[in-house]
Amino acid sequence: MNTDTTSIAPANRQALRCDGVRLWDSLMTLARIGATPAGGVRRLTLTELDGQARRLLIDWLRDCGCRIRVDAIGNIHGTRPGTEDLDPIGIGSHLDTQPNGGRFDGAYGVMAGLEVLRTLDDHGIRTRHPVNVTAWTNEEGSRFTPVMMGSGVYAGAFTLEHCLAQQDRDGQSVGAALEAIGFAGRDAAPALAAYFEPHIEQGPILEAEGITIGAVETALGQRWFDVLITGQDAHAGPTPLAMRRDALLGAAQVIAAVRRIAEEHPDEARGTVGQLDVTPNSRNVIPGRVALTVDLRNARDETLSRMVDALRAQCDAIAAEHRLTISLDEVVYFPPCRFDPALVALVEQAAGRLGHSHRRIASGAGHDAVYVARRHPAAMIFVPCEGGISHNEIENAQPEHLAAGTDVLLEAVLAFDRGDA
Amino acid sequence: MNTDTTSIAPANRQALRCDGVRLWDSLMTLARIGATPAGGVRRLTLTELDGQARRLLIDWLRDCGCRIRVDAIGNIHGTRPGTEDLDPIGIGSHLDTQPNGGRFDGAYGVMAGLEVLRTLDDHGIRTRHPVNVTAWTNEEGSRFTPVMMGSGVYAGAFTLEHCLAQQDRDGQSVGAALEAIGFAGRDAAPALAAYFEPHIEQGPILEAEGITIGAVETALGQRWFDVLITGQDAHAGPTPLAMRRDALLGAAQVIAAVRRIAEEHPDEARGTVGQLDVTPNSRNVIPGRVALTVDLRNARDETLSRMVDALRAQCDAIAAEHRLTISLDEVVYFPPCRFDPALVALVEQAAGRLGHSHRRIASGAGHDAVYVARRHPAAMIFVPCEGGISHNEIENAQPEHLAAGTDVLLEAVLAFDRGDA
Repeated sequence: MNTDTTSIAPANRQALRCDGVRLWDSLMTLARIGATPAGGVRRLTLTELDGQARRLLIDWLRDCGCRIRVDAIGNIHGTRPGTEDLDPIGIGSHLDTQPNGGRFDGAYGVMAGLEVLRTLDDHGIRTRHPVNVTAWTNEEGSRFTPVMMGSGVYAGAFTLEHCLAQQDRDGQSVGAALEAIGFAGRDAAPALAAYFEPHIEQGPILEAEGITIGAVETALGQRWFDVLITGQDAHAGPTPLAMRRDALLGAAQVIAAVRRIAEEHPDEARGTVGQLDVTPNSRNVIPGRVALTVDLRNARDETLSRMVDALRAQCDAIAAEHRLTISLDEVVYFPPCRFDPALVALVEQAAGRLGHSHRRIASGAGHDAVYVARRHPAAMIFVPCEGGISHNEIENAQPEHLAAGTDVLLEAVLAFDRGDA
Repeated sequence: MNTDTTSIAPANRQALRCDGVRLWDSLMTLARIGATPAGGVRRLTLTELDGQARRLLIDWLRDCGCRIRVDAIGNIHGTRPGTEDLDPIGIGSHLDTQPNGGRFDGAYGVMAGLEVLRTLDDHGIRTRHPVNVTAWTNEEGSRFTPVMMGSGVYAGAFTLEHCLAQQDRDGQSVGAALEAIGFAGRDAAPALAAYFEPHIEQGPILEAEGITIGAVETALGQRWFDVLITGQDAHAGPTPLAMRRDALLGAAQVIAAVRRIAEEHPDEARGTVGQLDVTPNSRNVIPGRVALTVDLRNARDETLSRMVDALRAQCDAIAAEHRLTISLDEVVYFPPCRFDPALVALVEQAAGRLGHSHRRIASGAGHDAVYVARRHPAAMIFVPCEGGISHNEIENAQPEHLAAGTDVLLEAVLAFDRGDA
């Protein structure tokens, strides 16, 4: 960091731009750690590969003059000093990937933060607030549950002790894995004045509408259910229709009901049956048992509750009609998250000032920002990804979109630093 | 066999009755070979256990004075001589079971045949026709395909060479398995004047209606399809409903369509989706691919064809509505079988004479009689089974029903022998 500089220009100055080529190069360098033959990344949390990525990030952050702190759940915080005694403005996301993940999910938010620091350095800009880049531990939850572990501990959603004790399939605990890669930290995590998380959309809306920037105002609430449908398995041939208790026929009606419930409710309602297992699953046997999952999402908690009520009522009606029993077991409940309106407005204004098309958008998926928002004002910046595809090795994004998102991030950070929020 | 006897009495004589206790004892003795702790039987075709059951049957048939013939596919034919040079009246079924099978499926038909021979002996009755009891090889198809192998070879549905070459999962062929248990026979199989097959219903109709005897007039035709539904897997959260290509939602509509098609067609229509597999089958991923099976059945071939046409049309409409591709691959086609009307009438009349409640019924499942019917006049006699449950260790039937079915069999055999058909 070059400290021998003047303070930032006023708001009507020529907007700063990041170095899109450097950003892309950083992303591609990072993507080599755990690169798969199909062009994706397999870098599970707290593995040796994750350790390599973490050390590379720390090197890069130190090159920007950052003070590095690693907290007890392994979150890495790199802080570029400010000129005043203020809490830092935070930027962050995660370095871990899904087992067959892509190059951008998580990595983009961290590399965008790094690129902001580098751009500030390039232009010798000092901010009032420190600027802090965080890589949160285990966002994906593929190796250890719960998901969004690092940000969850940061926000007090889970206790540190609970998370350190979680084990992977081989019986290694989070605590042991942190020790093994040298990231069992002892530093306190910084409080933040604000938090911005850039991320690929992981959905198709921006691309379909030809819009570059999504100012994320909410993350949908999620309620997940395990549904067990029990009928009676019987021979497909000899059993007349009227005498059947066909669990799969009931399941088909549940699937249709989930879709209908999502269609009939407002507030970004979603409903999905993603998993379904039939017993005995034999070609000429009427299924006696079906286990399926229901994932309901909504931007408003009241509407989400109404969707759940509708689901229960529909399941009761289907059970009665087909002489089945249907049980619902709720396994996950994330309330909807409304991001900080002032920060969302900053993102939107920044996109406008930079001449990028933009829209307000809901995040359908969970993100570290959802937990951080429980503790500090937070917002997210979405950029398009190809075909809306993510959690897949073919995940892709355009360099110009990634650069635009980083420019908006930088502009929003500077606006917050000026006190525009 | 006692040959020092008079011929049978005229039709208005007191009806003969079998020995229901002896029949039950035979069934229970047979069920000990491969008995499972849960009360079922696991006696896969052409295993050592099947060999034990076969040798026991041969001993019992020899005790009735039968000539034993084993043909090249291992079918066992035991023939009690008649007084005239006529083709035998056949009775039969199978000794092999499903992996988790019951005590009656198949075994009942063979033991009923044996009990007929024993009862004829008890009463010193000589028939004009020989009476032949057959145990057909590999009816279940659990170890080797095709199902109904022995009767299929007998009827010319498959070649002997094809069937002998079929292998189980361990790579043992039918031919080698026959050799191993000593049942690679060289005898010619007898032509039959008529064929009767008693069997538990394997469905719930007789029990539900409180009827003892089903005079089986048809076996439903069957057309089986592998259906592959392809959409696009995507994140359940970020993907709006309108942008989804949800293969499982399409599958739910196919399941509902199969049921509706069965409901809307006459002639004992059945439609079942028994097997369904989702990819990637993850709770928060919209399914991109579903493979499922469709089993359509009907008593009339023309109606069955109309059902298939309706299925294809429905799949096309569902594919278009949800932007999916749906392919149908037909994997099995058994045409409907109409049993010999004169023999069906004999069964019905026999039940009436003996004072048993009876009804005409369709067989929803395949049976050896379906293949035998391609070569000779054939009919089946159904008796109730508990809850309609079969292919299950809890399969059960009432001794009095089993005895009643055997009495009807005996009465029908004697009526045919008198020339009533």
